[in-house]
Amino acid sequence: MFPTDPISNLATLIRCPSVTPAEGGALAALERMLSPLGFKVDRVVAKEAGTADIENLYARLGTQGPHLMFAGHTDVVPVGDEAAWTHGPFSAEIADGEMYGRGAVDMKGGIACFVAAVARHIEKHGPPEGSISFLITGDEEGPAINGTVKLLEWAAAQGERWDASLVGEPTNPDKLGDMIKIGRRGSLSGRITVHGVQGHAAYPHLADNPVRGVVQLVQALMYPPFDEGTENFQPSNLEVTTIDVGNAAVNVIPAKASAAFNIRFNDSWTAEKLMAEIVSRLDKAARDDRLRPGRAPVSYEIAWNERPSHVFLTRNDALIDSLSGAVESVTGRRPKLSTTGGTSDARFIKDFCPVVEFGLVGQTMHMVDERVAIADLETLTTIYESFIARWFGHAVA
Amino acid sequence: MFPTDPISNLATLIRCPSVTPAEGGALAALERMLSPLGFKVDRVVAKEAGTADIENLYARLGTQGPHLMFAGHTDVVPVGDEAAWTHGPFSAEIADGEMYGRGAVDMKGGIACFVAAVARHIEKHGPPEGSISFLITGDEEGPAINGTVKLLEWAAAQGERWDASLVGEPTNPDKLGDMIKIGRRGSLSGRITVHGVQGHAAYPHLADNPVRGVVQLVQALMYPPFDEGTENFQPSNLEVTTIDVGNAAVNVIPAKASAAFNIRFNDSWTAEKLMAEIVSRLDKAARDDRLRPGRAPVSYEIAWNERPSHVFLTRNDALIDSLSGAVESVTGRRPKLSTTGGTSDARFIKDFCPVVEFGLVGQTMHMVDERVAIADLETLTTIYESFIARWFGHAVA
Repeated sequence: MFPTDPISNLATLIRCPSVTPAEGGALAALERMLSPLGFKVDRVVAKEAGTADIENLYARLGTQGPHLMFAGHTDVVPVGDEAAWTHGPFSAEIADGEMYGRGAVDMKGGIACFVAAVARHIEKHGPPEGSISFLITGDEEGPAINGTVKLLEWAAAQGERWDASLVGEPTNPDKLGDMIKIGRRGSLSGRITVHGVQGHAAYPHLADNPVRGVVQLVQALMYPPFDEGTENFQPSNLEVTTIDVGNAAVNVIPAKASAAFNIRFNDSWTAEKLMAEIVSRLDKAARDDRLRPGRAPVSYEIAWNERPSHVFLTRNDALIDSLSGAVESVTGRRPKLSTTGGTSDARFIKDFCPVVEFGLVGQTMHMVDERVAIADLETLTTIYESFIARWFGHAVA
Repeated sequence: MFPTDPISNLATLIRCPSVTPAEGGALAALERMLSPLGFKVDRVVAKEAGTADIENLYARLGTQGPHLMFAGHTDVVPVGDEAAWTHGPFSAEIADGEMYGRGAVDMKGGIACFVAAVARHIEKHGPPEGSISFLITGDEEGPAINGTVKLLEWAAAQGERWDASLVGEPTNPDKLGDMIKIGRRGSLSGRITVHGVQGHAAYPHLADNPVRGVVQLVQALMYPPFDEGTENFQPSNLEVTTIDVGNAAVNVIPAKASAAFNIRFNDSWTAEKLMAEIVSRLDKAARDDRLRPGRAPVSYEIAWNERPSHVFLTRNDALIDSLSGAVESVTGRRPKLSTTGGTSDARFIKDFCPVVEFGLVGQTMHMVDERVAIADLETLTTIYESFIARWFGHAVA
């Protein structure tokens, strides 16, 4: 039987307790849905020393182009306080028109709808003139080391090439049809360590309080703003996420202070330009002597942690118009083309093909009582089905 | 035999391992020195729930006024890395004209010299026309809860009244005769806690980063300076001794940030006026929205920790002139009358009688290889002896 019912598809997936890094039966269930549709399914285990082995799935229907990839993840975040859930987090119970369960919107729901949309398309029109693939990871909510990046590399090494990708993350803030994501801000993190000279609080001239230095430096990161936003992006924004000294002795001037920061940046920057700007601000602030009159410049070092997430913006009209048109035709509303929010695995996919994101309403994601309106599952399936038809229509035309 | 030799007195005291809170035999040894001189000795044990019982000593020679009190402590700080000492920290060994040992300068040396000075005075002139007392605590280097404060209260309850006090702490930065302390800055500490709203670093508008708030607040504490100093005091100085957030997640805006500070303040302030000024600065900074555009004022609370140490300045000419004159007559140099440095037990004594401080050279205090020049012990004894004669001369005249 074809998996044309997104509600049934989602219930099956929710009942698999696939909290990262556990596969939990979710990819096996997906394989059982896709195989009858004619998909060739590969289960790809990614390994890296020091991390959990992760199961991923790649499935393709068709051998020719154009090639549309649906991307997503079956892993889910932990349930939190299970006793606080109205219905079990892996129960898929339906109450008052909503299905409860961890992953209901982030993002087993998106997968369930796309599977149903493909099944309906095939039922009505037969296989598309081209290929559809599913690139599904089990490591999106975790360290994301053994997930989308490795699966993309694996598939590319098999000769896979894609013309467009849709990521099924929940993109709608309030209502289905609100928002398509056509890009994402970049993300860059670092830690500053300021070295001072320890001493007694009564003899500050014999010491050099690194708290003064770290305050000067972080202030220069927080102000002035890095930019005022661009046509498609919000202003870049930096948050100092921690300052740590850890000095419990009230009479002691500490030897060291550190601070960490994260900046979400728009397309007026590259990560490299931004790193240079940050270092320039820090160097200038280090020489400011208002809080440290007569002192040598603040002695600090900076460590950039993790690879930065690069900013990207998708400008593929066929892809964006197919999706926007589908959303508008089904919901009657033109979705906002947005680049807001956090990073997503789309940042990895964009190196292989144009990518956009559209899924369910994100309000309950990661929360106790994560749930999805049954009506939304049906609507999203219809949108995805329309998108598939439009995209292949565009691409083939 | 009268304890007229400061070197022998000090060796006896150093060999008592009286690391706070241990008495270590030091007060018993002192009692054995003072009793033959005619002192009536009381050993006073102070107790308080949650703290170690502490032995203290009060000894008085004479029953009439004028009454001069010598104050100090026989407890010492821990030895640190004992293996790093050139000579054992409780060995009192002499090498190259210096006696080694924990407490050599802080401040068993001061006690040893004052005992010798009193002994010499009695040997030459008989008991003074008035009274001399020793107020010696075993809890100066520790929490100072069961020390000078309780001993003063105990003695006052016995009807003891004093006309002047000399504290024998090491007051000389470089050379014996450099400096008399005639007052001390006050000390006030507090901790600020800023409450924000936790959130994701990619959605700062849904959160309220308390790091922004805490930086605004501590900056207002660090700048501008509180004053420019007074005739007898350095400028007041505030050090932020720690900022703590403890957020390890680079993508998370934390919920809370805290900072602690300590201010050393001069006689242009009382602790109460200073607390009001600090709260006023914080309230103003909380409303500043440069780092938090469009936000409500920073939500913070402040906790003042410990009782503040009040500032004081001694203006008793008879006391200061007797001591200055003694120092100048012996060393040939006029000592600086200073109010610098940390707090001392003089801050408690000043509520009972005028108090000044003069002792050895402080350079090795609290360090490995704490030691005192043998020559300094002899010189300080001579200074103290001259001071006793001058003060009773002044006071009786």
